[in-house]
Formats: sequence, C-alpha cells, structure tokens
Amino acid sequence: MSELRRDPLVGRWVIVSTDNPTLPQGYEYEPHTWKGGTCPFCYGNESMTPPEIAVIREPGTGANTSGWHVRTVANKYPALQIEGDLNRTGVGIYDMSNGIGAHEVIIESPYHNKDLCDLLNPEIENVVSMYCQRALDLIKDRRFKCILVFRNFGPAAGASLEHPHTQIVALPMVPKNVKEELVGAHNYFDYRERCIFCDLLRQESQEKERIVVENKYFSAFCPFVSRFPFEIWILPKKHNCYFCHMTQDEIPALAAVLKEVLMKLKTVFPNLSYNMIIHSSPINGEDNVDSYHWHIEIMPKLTRVAGFEWGTGFYVVLTPPEIAAKYLKEAKIS
Amino acid sequence: MSELRRDPLVGRWVIVSTDNPTLPQGYEYEPHTWKGGTCPFCYGNESMTPPEIAVIREPGTGANTSGWHVRTVANKYPALQIEGDLNRTGVGIYDMSNGIGAHEVIIESPYHNKDLCDLLNPEIENVVSMYCQRALDLIKDRRFKCILVFRNFGPAAGASLEHPHTQIVALPMVPKNVKEELVGAHNYFDYRERCIFCDLLRQESQEKERIVVENKYFSAFCPFVSRFPFEIWILPKKHNCYFCHMTQDEIPALAAVLKEVLMKLKTVFPNLSYNMIIHSSPINGEDNVDSYHWHIEIMPKLTRVAGFEWGTGFYVVLTPPEIAAKYLKEAKIS
Repeated sequence: MSELRRDPLVGRWVIVSTDNPTLPQGYEYEPHTWKGGTCPFCYGNESMTPPEIAVIREPGTGANTSGWHVRTVANKYPALQIEGDLNRTGVGIYDMSNGIGAHEVIIESPYHNKDLCDLLNPEIENVVSMYCQRALDLIKDRRFKCILVFRNFGPAAGASLEHPHTQIVALPMVPKNVKEELVGAHNYFDYRERCIFCDLLRQESQEKERIVVENKYFSAFCPFVSRFPFEIWILPKKHNCYFCHMTQDEIPALAAVLKEVLMKLKTVFPNLSYNMIIHSSPINGEDNVDSYHWHIEIMPKLTRVAGFEWGTGFYVVLTPPEIAAKYLKEAKIS
Repeated sequence: MSELRRDPLVGRWVIVSTDNPTLPQGYEYEPHTWKGGTCPFCYGNESMTPPEIAVIREPGTGANTSGWHVRTVANKYPALQIEGDLNRTGVGIYDMSNGIGAHEVIIESPYHNKDLCDLLNPEIENVVSMYCQRALDLIKDRRFKCILVFRNFGPAAGASLEHPHTQIVALPMVPKNVKEELVGAHNYFDYRERCIFCDLLRQESQEKERIVVENKYFSAFCPFVSRFPFEIWILPKKHNCYFCHMTQDEIPALAAVLKEVLMKLKTVFPNLSYNMIIHSSPINGEDNVDSYHWHIEIMPKLTRVAGFEWGTGFYVVLTPPEIAAKYLKEAKIS
C-alpha cells in the first residue's frame, strides 16, 4: 500500500509509492532539444542583451564586451517593469495592480554547454555572490516586498534559452506560496518556540537515510514529504531568514554542495531538466525573521503535473525519497 | 505594461500580458504522440481492465463484454487503495497515514479517437450521469472526505493512455487546494453574506466580454484571473455546492456546454492537451454548504509551469482572458 505523508510547513499531503517504487531507469523524461541560432548569452554577443546591470569580469575589459565571468542584464521580455509608481485598484470583486517589479537575468558563465555543476568551484562562488549582490541591491527599492531567485534548466523546466542562466524577480507584494510558508513557519514557532526548518534538519541528520551531501554549513537531502521524485532541498545549518545575508564562509560551502548535488543528479539522470528555487524571507516590512529559514529547492522534471495534482495539491511520488537519496548518494561523479 | 490581477477566492496574483498579448498562432504546444499497442479501453478488450464497477450498456449484453456506452473500472495502478482502515500516525515532526482511498477510471465511450466533445450530446449526458452516479456511491463510504473528478487529455496533460477517460478519486482527507477554496469562499460569505461564485457570475454576465458560451443553466467563461492562457471555467447558474446533486435538467445543459466549449478549444488549437477538473464541496462532515459553489475548470497546456510559478504561485498569462474569450467565441465549430 502507498503511504500518505503530510508536510508540517504548509499542510500539503503527498502519496508515496512505497510498495512499488519506480527506479531511475523507469523514468522516461523529455530530452533537451533546442532551436539553433545565435546565442545572446555567449561571448561576443553582449550587444544582443540589454546592457549589464552588474558584472564580475576580468580587470581591464570594458562593459558589455567579452571578458566577463558572470553577467546580469535586464530580462529582454520582462514579466514586470521597473519604471513607475505602484497603483492598486479594484474592479468589482477583483483587485488589480500595474505590473511594477524587476526581472533580471544572471548569465552564469560564458560557457554555452556548461551547467552550473560543470563550472569550477570558484566560478560557482561567483554566481552565488552575484545572487547575493543583486538581491542586496534590489532590497533597497522600498516598493519591493519579495525577491525570488530561480533557475529553469532544460526545456521541460520552462527554459527558453539553452545557455545556463538564473532569473531574479522583485515583486511588489508577497506572493501566495511565500506567504503560506511564512504562516506555516510562524505557527510552528508560535506553538513550539523553535524553527520548523531547524527541527527538520535535526530530524534528517538523526535519521540520515535521506541525506545526499553535507558539509559544515549546508545539508542537502531528499525531503520526507517530497512532491517530486528525486526532489532535493539544500538547507543552511545556521538559522537565517535571508539567503543574501550568507557569510563569506557560507558562499564557498554552498558552491561546493550545489556542485556535488547537481553533478550527482546529472549522473543518475543525464540531460535532465529541473527547476531550482531559492526560498527566502520577504523584505521591506514584510519580514518574519524569527521563524523563517531560507533554503533551496531543486525539482527534477521526471514526471508531469496532471489533473489530480492541480485539483488537490496532493502529489504522487513514484520514488520514495529514501530510495532517491540512496541512488544520489551512491552516484559516482566522473 | 503588464497587469497584475488578484483572485479574490484564494488570493493568487497573476501577471497578464495586456500590452503584448500572444495570439493563438504564437503558441507552440506539444503534439499528441502515443505508443502503439492494444488499447485496454477499446471494445473487445474488457478483460484487460479490472471488472466494471458501474456501467451504462445495451440491454442484453453481459458484464465485462462489448456493448457498453460508459464503463467504470478500478484503476489498475491506483494511487490509493480501497481496503483497510484509515490509520494516522506521527513520525517526529511529520504526519503520516496509510494510503486509503478509491481510484477509478471512467471510460467515456468505446471510441478510441473521439474526445468528449466528439461524442453526441446524449453520449456526453451518459458520461456526466456516470460522474454523478459514482460520486453518490463513493459518498456513502464515511471514510472519504473529498471526491475529485478530473480528466487528463493528451500527453502534455499527463495522460498515459490515448483512449479518452476520466478519473475519480476519493480521499480520506480534504486536500490543501480544496481547503483553500473553501476558506476563501467562507471568508467572502462571512463578510458579504453572498456567494463569491454567484457574485463572479453576475460580474461576468454584466461585463460579457469573457463569456464563451452560456445556456439557461450554465455559463462558460475565461476567468478574469486566469492562471493559464485560454483557461475556461464552467459555472452552474444555480447555487449548489455538490456537482453530483445536479438536477435532471442540468445534466443535458452541462453536456451541451461541455461539447461546445471543448469543440471551440479544439478548433482554435487542434490536438491540444488539457486538464479538466470538477471542483466540488467536501463530504461526510467536512461540508461548507452555504458558501461553496461547484464548478469545472479547464486548463489548456499551451505553456509550461516554470520556476517563477513554482516559487511564487504567481502565473504569467501571455494571452489576456478577454482576448482568449473573443477567439473562442468566434471559433466556428465544423
């Protein structure tokens, strides 16, 4: 019989196929296929993107020319626009607002065919530093209440360009999913006077079987209440609500864990698409410092979300996280 | 500039591309491709499925043989199992339950290549009647708190078999997404002493521009706060919290609206995959009769859900519902 598990944070139930688990070879996932054409994110094509907002580049090289390591530009097709005042109105029973916000793209490296895990550790550290730098800058804009950093890797994850990149969005309101996590974390803290994520880390490190990789500062594991097969969470061991307040020691530690985790995922599932999302506390007066704990969620695209998931918010997980963690842990990185 | 719109039911924001809308020809969606092999849902292959639980068939034909019009069988690979007592336990900070529930498949017709809208109206009425009949039967089991009827049509919508079918799931708890809608509807009712869905119907029928099809009993429209381009909701005009309490007049009226709406969608987007979900009130003591209003949501698979949506619960809608409704309304059904 399958097992139902409930997420204590947001109250989501999942159905885990514990009696008949799907092993890695049982998944047929969508391959990476891309249209050809000139890549706007490659060296020499800097003029094809909006001008750089922030950059880490070789000394002596000029803005918007080659010689950069990590490059942040405005999204050419932004979901939200930076100019203007926030203007909220009502239309009958509905509420509306104009589309104020920021939408930037972080080009992670000049290498078209290298995913984040294929970069050298110092290169990944540059990318993580850029995440923090951009977030710290966007926070200064008091219109923004929430900053989201996410990567769509591969077409099945919604990426429209092959060249690996991260997106950063600043929103003028705290979105529903973030609010839910905050409320869940707050309620737990209220009841137990402890952080739910710290408790979760403690339980995972006692039970051990779902841990994939860990070091002094971070722990990566397949969560007990995974929504997707081979889902991986990366939690900082030190309680902290903002990812951009990472210390100088934590940045290289995160880079190392990211490299190892993504490399292991790639070893088990070559050419897999995935989403990677940084969950962090809202900003500018919407804070909830005591009870929230920033973290990263990696969601591999091995299955499709269908009517059952849409209708209920239940997820059916064909591989229990205990088995997924075992495969990832044992994966030999070449 | 894009427009942010907020759903008054669950508080979800969406970003609508009002300034640069994508028109139907701008979408590239996944085609229907299927593996060959014998179809277990076709005439003559009745022995390939579990025995029928309920059936509408020609008089004089025997159970589990040809001659049926609509046939309900247990799902061969059920997410939940019907036998056993519900057993809930805790594991550290997590909650668990055994996987008790029902998971049935309604084979909508013997025709392998006919979607619901390709059937004749009386055939669609049979399918709708079967939905009600199965729900009314499953409600008798006091272990179940929620019944979900949904259709995954096409591979991009998560269908694993080509032969059109509906699934019905009975759950031992009220899932998160259903609870959210109930709470939203309840809060609105508490504040205004009116049903939010009845208000929504009134506003849509006043503004008219998002209505696709309507008759005496049902209204189909592209909701103001669509999450997906060309999303369509079908609402009964008479306030009622349970779909399975539809009257004998409502069944043919729903069949007619379903046929027209799905036919129009197919005319604008041939071979499109979509999910169709019946939202209805929980059962057996979890009722919320006054404030909830059952309805159908149709979610076309024209775009992919990516990191932004997963991280925020915000959706980016490339075609405003006003434009989608115009295309659907004007689509000439052949």
